[in-house]
Amino acid sequence: MIQGFSRFSREEKIRIASEFARHPVEFAREMIANWLPGRKTGEQDPGFTENAVSDFRLPYSVAPNFLVNGKQYMVPMVTEESSVIAAASSAAKFWWDRGGFVTTTGNLIKPGQIHFIWKGTEAIITNFVREIREGLLDSVSHIVRSMKSRGGGIDGIQLKNLTDKLEGYYQIEVLFNTVDAMGANFINTCLETMSEFILKQAEKRGISESLEIIMSVLSNYTPQCLVKCMVACKISDLVPAGTNYRGSDFSRRFETAVQMAHHDISRAVTHNKGIFNGVDAVVLATGNDFRAVEAAGHSWACKDGVYKALSEVRIQGNEFEFSLEIPLAIGVVGGLTNLHPMARASLQLLGDPNAKTLMSVAASAGMANHFSAIRALTTGGIQRGHMKLHLVNILGQLKADEVEKNAAIKYFRNHKVSFNSVRDFLTLMRER
Amino acid sequence: MIQGFSRFSREEKIRIASEFARHPVEFAREMIANWLPGRKTGEQDPGFTENAVSDFRLPYSVAPNFLVNGKQYMVPMVTEESSVIAAASSAAKFWWDRGGFVTTTGNLIKPGQIHFIWKGTEAIITNFVREIREGLLDSVSHIVRSMKSRGGGIDGIQLKNLTDKLEGYYQIEVLFNTVDAMGANFINTCLETMSEFILKQAEKRGISESLEIIMSVLSNYTPQCLVKCMVACKISDLVPAGTNYRGSDFSRRFETAVQMAHHDISRAVTHNKGIFNGVDAVVLATGNDFRAVEAAGHSWACKDGVYKALSEVRIQGNEFEFSLEIPLAIGVVGGLTNLHPMARASLQLLGDPNAKTLMSVAASAGMANHFSAIRALTTGGIQRGHMKLHLVNILGQLKADEVEKNAAIKYFRNHKVSFNSVRDFLTLMRER
Repeated sequence: MIQGFSRFSREEKIRIASEFARHPVEFAREMIANWLPGRKTGEQDPGFTENAVSDFRLPYSVAPNFLVNGKQYMVPMVTEESSVIAAASSAAKFWWDRGGFVTTTGNLIKPGQIHFIWKGTEAIITNFVREIREGLLDSVSHIVRSMKSRGGGIDGIQLKNLTDKLEGYYQIEVLFNTVDAMGANFINTCLETMSEFILKQAEKRGISESLEIIMSVLSNYTPQCLVKCMVACKISDLVPAGTNYRGSDFSRRFETAVQMAHHDISRAVTHNKGIFNGVDAVVLATGNDFRAVEAAGHSWACKDGVYKALSEVRIQGNEFEFSLEIPLAIGVVGGLTNLHPMARASLQLLGDPNAKTLMSVAASAGMANHFSAIRALTTGGIQRGHMKLHLVNILGQLKADEVEKNAAIKYFRNHKVSFNSVRDFLTLMRER
Repeated sequence: MIQGFSRFSREEKIRIASEFARHPVEFAREMIANWLPGRKTGEQDPGFTENAVSDFRLPYSVAPNFLVNGKQYMVPMVTEESSVIAAASSAAKFWWDRGGFVTTTGNLIKPGQIHFIWKGTEAIITNFVREIREGLLDSVSHIVRSMKSRGGGIDGIQLKNLTDKLEGYYQIEVLFNTVDAMGANFINTCLETMSEFILKQAEKRGISESLEIIMSVLSNYTPQCLVKCMVACKISDLVPAGTNYRGSDFSRRFETAVQMAHHDISRAVTHNKGIFNGVDAVVLATGNDFRAVEAAGHSWACKDGVYKALSEVRIQGNEFEFSLEIPLAIGVVGGLTNLHPMARASLQLLGDPNAKTLMSVAASAGMANHFSAIRALTTGGIQRGHMKLHLVNILGQLKADEVEKNAAIKYFRNHKVSFNSVRDFLTLMRER
């Protein structure tokens, strides 16, 4: 076992880590080459996490021509997956001429719970919670003050009886309005402080023997932070470029594809994954937490007891409407949003939005990506565009020059792209 | 609308984007400063995505002392969230002395479907699929060849009748063994090729009027790629350091916390989110697709019709057992895994693992993170450790010097950390 690893210098950490690698020198060189130069060890920038020895770079891209609620945006997106930005940009442009994305956002309420086991009667605990309610609010007033001044604060406190599910299981659920912050630290600090207050009060009233608080923590299940995003147009205007489909055929195929994702989990999972491709790229670019967004979204997708599509198509006469519902508890202050220089730049690029505007833009990016994916799947297939980009990556890896690249792009219009087929093609070209 | 944006040079893209920012010069400077120098525009490296104008750096960390199936690992982790690496490392160390993580992995089968609407009888389509089965396999033999040589290939073809859910909805489900590759492109290319073959055959037999293929695509719902990960020890050995809990009390509280996540969705979502904090950090570090992993994991969490915890505690006599089940369709070849220099380095650091080993390590990292989270929640609370790290970030942002840092760390041992409280503390110190 390696003792005291976290206290070693970065150079020492790299040396120790490199002993695990097959080519220690090459490994160490890569760590050093990818570390943004001009930065001293221990400087704030990489301090977000522990034991940082280098940087992992993801391409930072911008997707132009997003029209969201009538306003133009250049959307910052960070993803390692090729075609995501191309898909989002292409759909943004398509909908630009058709009114753009229209969103409505729920409120900014995030819940947290004090989870406890209670061995007494329901009447006693109900009474206890009622009696300490004001004191509970007072106990966190010094923490809540600045959130209150920004229009947020605590929106409700409720005792929940879950004893039908687990013996003695109760929750005190607290609803927080965190305004423009994601607010995880704020919520957890409030809940832990409240939890201490509850224990003291229980002791005072001689009921502490029957009450055991297990944990106090925010929940990422945030159905109140729902964003609805919609695009709509006349079916006759819904002609996918570069295909032979008419609007009526395309819209019917599109609708069927979405319906399938409402009825089969295998399809629903990938259907929704395509939405998160776009959403997460904005979440990452703005320094928000994509694990929180994914957990909230996918659990929301199975709220009816069956996991299904987060989007819906409605066709009425000549009207095509495509909509999406997704909970998005993200913020524009606190956390990394202002600490990471590129996250700060992303917010600038979006015109310093408030949380609701960011939620709207992220949902629209998800929608754009999703629309392009279903459009590709139901027309020429997803691989055509995807493999073209993949081909460029493979050609780069195989160090193809311009002549080889152009020849390959031409050849692979009618041939299947794979690492092996591209390598074979280049070998043939070079042997010639 | 901005026309032809993707064809502009990187510099031109930055100039156009900066017009959206409040401080265009500052924005452009940030884009240039975060771009890894020594790289020419259009070079392979950032070409993974389109419209890349800069790099988004995430700290690349290593978590030492992981013992997985008896082998020692230094685990590469990429995350923006503070405490994740500290939590993983701390749990790894804790379990090192108690036998480490033990995993079993399912197989490497990923499914894909040809989704279609069939207007004829079930007998005719069943017969059709049976008759073309061999031809279907032949149609992709040239694509499957190299996968076959590595021990993979097509593992099954099955007609699925979903007409009880949606009129005329059938699938041809194909199971792919992609061995050490995630295999998304491989699967989609096979399915689209098969789909063309089916259309031709249907035409030949005069049934093409009744058959409409809607789409052909892989599914990220991958229950066969299940990884089980377990830690176990004597309850008397389960004493959380730095607390007053005895093993018996702690294990009981821990068990209750996990049970709660089996009975309440609000808790379950965040419970599982803690697992993905660790898993995704490894997924990102190795160039895999975290949206795919999240979609698979969370949809698996609601397979029984209720969204619930992916982990379980079993206590029998003096034995404590904590286990996790999670589908992980990740790979070590193809995609970005070998194209991104840091992803390549990560695989080196893990001793060039095969897919199953990487699945085991990623699940163990998730388990480690998760164990630390539940341990913190059920003992001193999550904020104690978390806020200490958050404090260091805020101090960095406020450009505190060493003297101020040390004073702040001491002071905030007994005071709540927030951006405002730290700023006020520093203002007071500086005014003095």
